[in-house]
Amino acid sequence: MHNPTELQKIIEQAIPKLAYPAQPANLYEPIKYIMSLGGKRIRPVMVLMAAELFTDEVTKALDVALAIETFHNFTLVHDDIMDNAPLRRGKQTVHEKWGVNNAILSGDVMMVESNKHLSKVDVNVLKPVLDTFNQTAQGVCEGQQLDMEFETRDDVSIEEYLEMIRLKTAVLLGGAMKLGAIVGGADDKNAALLYEFGENLGVAFQLQDDILDVYGDPEKFGKQVGGDIIANKKTFLHLNAKALINAEETDILLGEHENTSNKVKAVTLLYNNYGIKELANTKMEQYLAKAYQALDDLVIAENRKTNLRELAQQIMVRES
Amino acid sequence: MHNPTELQKIIEQAIPKLAYPAQPANLYEPIKYIMSLGGKRIRPVMVLMAAELFTDEVTKALDVALAIETFHNFTLVHDDIMDNAPLRRGKQTVHEKWGVNNAILSGDVMMVESNKHLSKVDVNVLKPVLDTFNQTAQGVCEGQQLDMEFETRDDVSIEEYLEMIRLKTAVLLGGAMKLGAIVGGADDKNAALLYEFGENLGVAFQLQDDILDVYGDPEKFGKQVGGDIIANKKTFLHLNAKALINAEETDILLGEHENTSNKVKAVTLLYNNYGIKELANTKMEQYLAKAYQALDDLVIAENRKTNLRELAQQIMVRES
Repeated sequence: MHNPTELQKIIEQAIPKLAYPAQPANLYEPIKYIMSLGGKRIRPVMVLMAAELFTDEVTKALDVALAIETFHNFTLVHDDIMDNAPLRRGKQTVHEKWGVNNAILSGDVMMVESNKHLSKVDVNVLKPVLDTFNQTAQGVCEGQQLDMEFETRDDVSIEEYLEMIRLKTAVLLGGAMKLGAIVGGADDKNAALLYEFGENLGVAFQLQDDILDVYGDPEKFGKQVGGDIIANKKTFLHLNAKALINAEETDILLGEHENTSNKVKAVTLLYNNYGIKELANTKMEQYLAKAYQALDDLVIAENRKTNLRELAQQIMVRES
Repeated sequence: MHNPTELQKIIEQAIPKLAYPAQPANLYEPIKYIMSLGGKRIRPVMVLMAAELFTDEVTKALDVALAIETFHNFTLVHDDIMDNAPLRRGKQTVHEKWGVNNAILSGDVMMVESNKHLSKVDVNVLKPVLDTFNQTAQGVCEGQQLDMEFETRDDVSIEEYLEMIRLKTAVLLGGAMKLGAIVGGADDKNAALLYEFGENLGVAFQLQDDILDVYGDPEKFGKQVGGDIIANKKTFLHLNAKALINAEETDILLGEHENTSNKVKAVTLLYNNYGIKELANTKMEQYLAKAYQALDDLVIAENRKTNLRELAQQIMVRES
């Protein structure tokens, strides 16, 4: 078995070897560009890791891992258009560099590339692989749609928010685990448990991201601390606070401040007063517990589960 | 065997029965909307027709036919964004009605829906079906990319133009025929010949469209006669004329006229003087001949080929 770092290396070595047609260059260059921007390759590593629980031939799962990573990057290209984002991992987004139309079309062809990778799996698992992938892809699109709609809605409930992050972020982690399990040769029960592990870990991860936006160490957190507060983003913290606070405090939460730093301070104080961080931590721990429960229930030798626990810990790095 | 009209009816009856999730409504309503706008359903009819050459159970090919029609409509949604088109079949385009971001995402999920339809075919043909579909989808994306790039290029050659329309329009007709053949149970040789038939018919169809833009009967042609001339579109006629005319005539071809009707008249006169219509007709007939040759070479009973000949004639309706 390979440890997470070794699996990441397998992915990093495979990506530059992916062959795309030379022409039309402007269709394929953006794919090479976005795929080379890096990131932790968590999703394809999850595919390989899940497969390796059931087979020693981890390369059997490489095509599916590349399909998942290509699909994930496709969603980044299209999401960045929709969010009008100038930067991705510190570099120009595809639509900034090549224009919106080109970015739409390169994204489209990335979806085709994902499906080409998938179609290479053993024909005896092709149908369940396709079904799992398509269900995953559909969920991710639904999550992005809900996320966009929430921006202009004032009545988003906490349950709706949890469902949105489940779809937008977590089903892809669940799908990655399940796909790896299927190509590795898992039975239906183990494949379903690995899906549960990935999905619950995904929701926990997103809740952690919501918490770190407010309480993260600016040195360690990759984004601007307080960015969600400044943007009035409807995070788990925001929605919980909104449900508890009075009218005056609502003005603080939703109002615009000339000094954004003062707004971050004021809203953080509000969160502190209402124990919002603890609420979010509790919810996050619930999802994590469900993820670990799925691991416990997994019918494989205990010593094979070490990598998955290590991965979960890597993903859920706590700020003290 | 069913005639083309009966096959079209099978498609028209199947489309309203397609079930999409109720939520998020704004993700799925655009799919129902664009799929219900009609059209001649040529591509899914081609799938069924090709299948019926080899099987009496035409419904075996229905999922693939719906995959092709869904994919085609996905390309319309995204192409209309890129072309900034306000209308499609006389109705608002999806991005006009729901906004660009929504249209991008609904298009994306249509691609997933296409793949879901595909995954329902018999597992013994699943792999060749996926390979053919993915190759087709990739070609269509490449064609759209070239079409966009040609708008700002001054050095497009006639060969490049033919390759662009082959990719953008013709490979989907070829792919539809081949997919139908595969699910119907054709051998590789017949499937390849049906691809040839569809692709060559597709190029001939696009060349006819170029000709009709200038020489079509305004009563019968669905679009504004002379539209390509006014837009300086690099059609087969435009590119052939450009290669033959002198500098003064080039000003007529490429210049802007205050009176668009005068420009159409002047460029048509130019085309007439250089026999451009005949050039285009000759090229179109060459592709048609290749399409019919593929039909002749098809190893099935001659009386089963009648429907395909009828379809080709329906598509290639001549203006006298």
